[in-house]
Amino acid sequence: MSEFGVIAALHAALVAAGAGPDAGDVGIGDDAAVLEWPAGGPLRLLVCCDAVVAGVHADLALTGLDDLGWKALAATVSDVAAMGGRPTSAVVTVAAPPGCDLPLLYAGLGAAAAATGCPVVGGDLVGAGQLVVSVTVTGVVDGAAVLRSGASPGDRLWLTGPLGGAAAGLRLLRAALDAPAGPAPDAALAAAHARPVPRLAEGRAARAAGATAMIDVSDGLGADLGHLLDASGVGAELDDVPVRAGATLEEAVGGGDDYELLFAAPPDAGVAEAFAAAALPAPLPIGRVVAGRAAATLGGRPLPRAGWAHAVGP
Amino acid sequence: MSEFGVIAALHAALVAAGAGPDAGDVGIGDDAAVLEWPAGGPLRLLVCCDAVVAGVHADLALTGLDDLGWKALAATVSDVAAMGGRPTSAVVTVAAPPGCDLPLLYAGLGAAAAATGCPVVGGDLVGAGQLVVSVTVTGVVDGAAVLRSGASPGDRLWLTGPLGGAAAGLRLLRAALDAPAGPAPDAALAAAHARPVPRLAEGRAARAAGATAMIDVSDGLGADLGHLLDASGVGAELDDVPVRAGATLEEAVGGGDDYELLFAAPPDAGVAEAFAAAALPAPLPIGRVVAGRAAATLGGRPLPRAGWAHAVGP
Repeated sequence: MSEFGVIAALHAALVAAGAGPDAGDVGIGDDAAVLEWPAGGPLRLLVCCDAVVAGVHADLALTGLDDLGWKALAATVSDVAAMGGRPTSAVVTVAAPPGCDLPLLYAGLGAAAAATGCPVVGGDLVGAGQLVVSVTVTGVVDGAAVLRSGASPGDRLWLTGPLGGAAAGLRLLRAALDAPAGPAPDAALAAAHARPVPRLAEGRAARAAGATAMIDVSDGLGADLGHLLDASGVGAELDDVPVRAGATLEEAVGGGDDYELLFAAPPDAGVAEAFAAAALPAPLPIGRVVAGRAAATLGGRPLPRAGWAHAVGP
Repeated sequence: MSEFGVIAALHAALVAAGAGPDAGDVGIGDDAAVLEWPAGGPLRLLVCCDAVVAGVHADLALTGLDDLGWKALAATVSDVAAMGGRPTSAVVTVAAPPGCDLPLLYAGLGAAAAATGCPVVGGDLVGAGQLVVSVTVTGVVDGAAVLRSGASPGDRLWLTGPLGGAAAGLRLLRAALDAPAGPAPDAALAAAHARPVPRLAEGRAARAAGATAMIDVSDGLGADLGHLLDASGVGAELDDVPVRAGATLEEAVGGGDDYELLFAAPPDAGVAEAFAAAALPAPLPIGRVVAGRAAATLGGRPLPRAGWAHAVGP
């Protein structure tokens, strides 16, 4: 079973056992949980978590422990960005093998925390045979969060930037490791892999413009567009996938780890104006939402649901 | 360096890098982070996290995966109890090896979530070579949380129950594994090890009675009393350590994993009355806070700082 299928089944069992979220809250299955806080008020508390496992999500032969720390925190903050929220705190649990360079790991965590305005307020540190860094981030939205489930036929689809940079950077880092005498990997693409930047301001601009659904493209466009369409019960027709210079179309569609935001908004939602007002680069229109059941096409052909979904569990 | 020393050094570096908590909040070093939420209001958001590593914190030859799940969630909820708060949500990150019985693990997580009124609202699931379960819990206090740092000379010290049950249960489970033909381990002591119960109502009663400092005894009385005294800058004289039937004094002082609450309160604080009003068993007086620097005595002799503090890091 895929990661997503296992999670859905486990969480369905939690809800059946009375251990799931309250009816009024948004729980499992979106980028972050959304809790009314305080009860009855307009504010929403966002809670989300992500884990990075050395050797699974990060290859320490290619990037440093500080990069791993950065990515663990940045990837979790990205889930707050995908709700249109602002991060408020992070707690970090590190399971570390003996001899792990913890100060280097925490330097990267701290750099990402400072860069995203998300202070680290606590954590736990335990011994283990393998490095696992788990980050939980809280965030806030004043009003409704942007879920994955609100897209309607007729909405336009937008990306906050071109895709494929992270996968291309990984490819170049691997090539440089295999051929040390060859050219150094392009620094910007290597950074796209090693130090992704959550699109916080872009997420808030999209929400301000009336975005109806949003997700970060951490699993790859094919997979994450699929999640958004599944949740909204709609299909999509893409005209184009913007590919970052130096990356391939395949890397842009299936590579993942880019952390750009994908969102839907009505055609009359002043998206370009909202981004311009926030002094942000113009988002990229890529297609439209259509009636139908969760299928996407690119230039009239089916878009593969490729992406990052490692098999786990039985 | 001890776990606590490593954490303190890492978090000091985060604060120096501008990635620590805001000045008005309580950050690293207490049972939970305490954040003013919303800003300027009376409510405090608590955020805390704990990790359980199979083979380090839980021996799967002795207890089940469901017990591991229970303990991971219950231990984190206990940190909210130690602030006098009420848990509101949990997110769970599981790093699991292939073949891990995830439904059994989540059954235990869900049972603890239902038993403590702390819904699981999200999570992450990743593949790894070793099972690591990380739980982050949010909670709420209406007003000030009870920190570790408020104890003053003259305060009385209380425990919510006798200690040593978890360590005795672990000893009996090990003996039963070594000698399968012998007597079955005492069920209540085995449960004290396998399925600890956070003292949520007790924590709120202690706060209502005016507790000045509180901590859960998860690391052992010697260690956790030491943390409370360190934070408060005081010493303690204990008359007595209440030992659970079937446990030894050594297990009560140094065994850990009991999750009873240890708290300080002024002599005129109506502690017994507050617990009676909440229909809770009377807490146990164990001694008093004295001037001095973080040292504790039991019956006039130094109390060892024994307890659970596995060495990690360089």
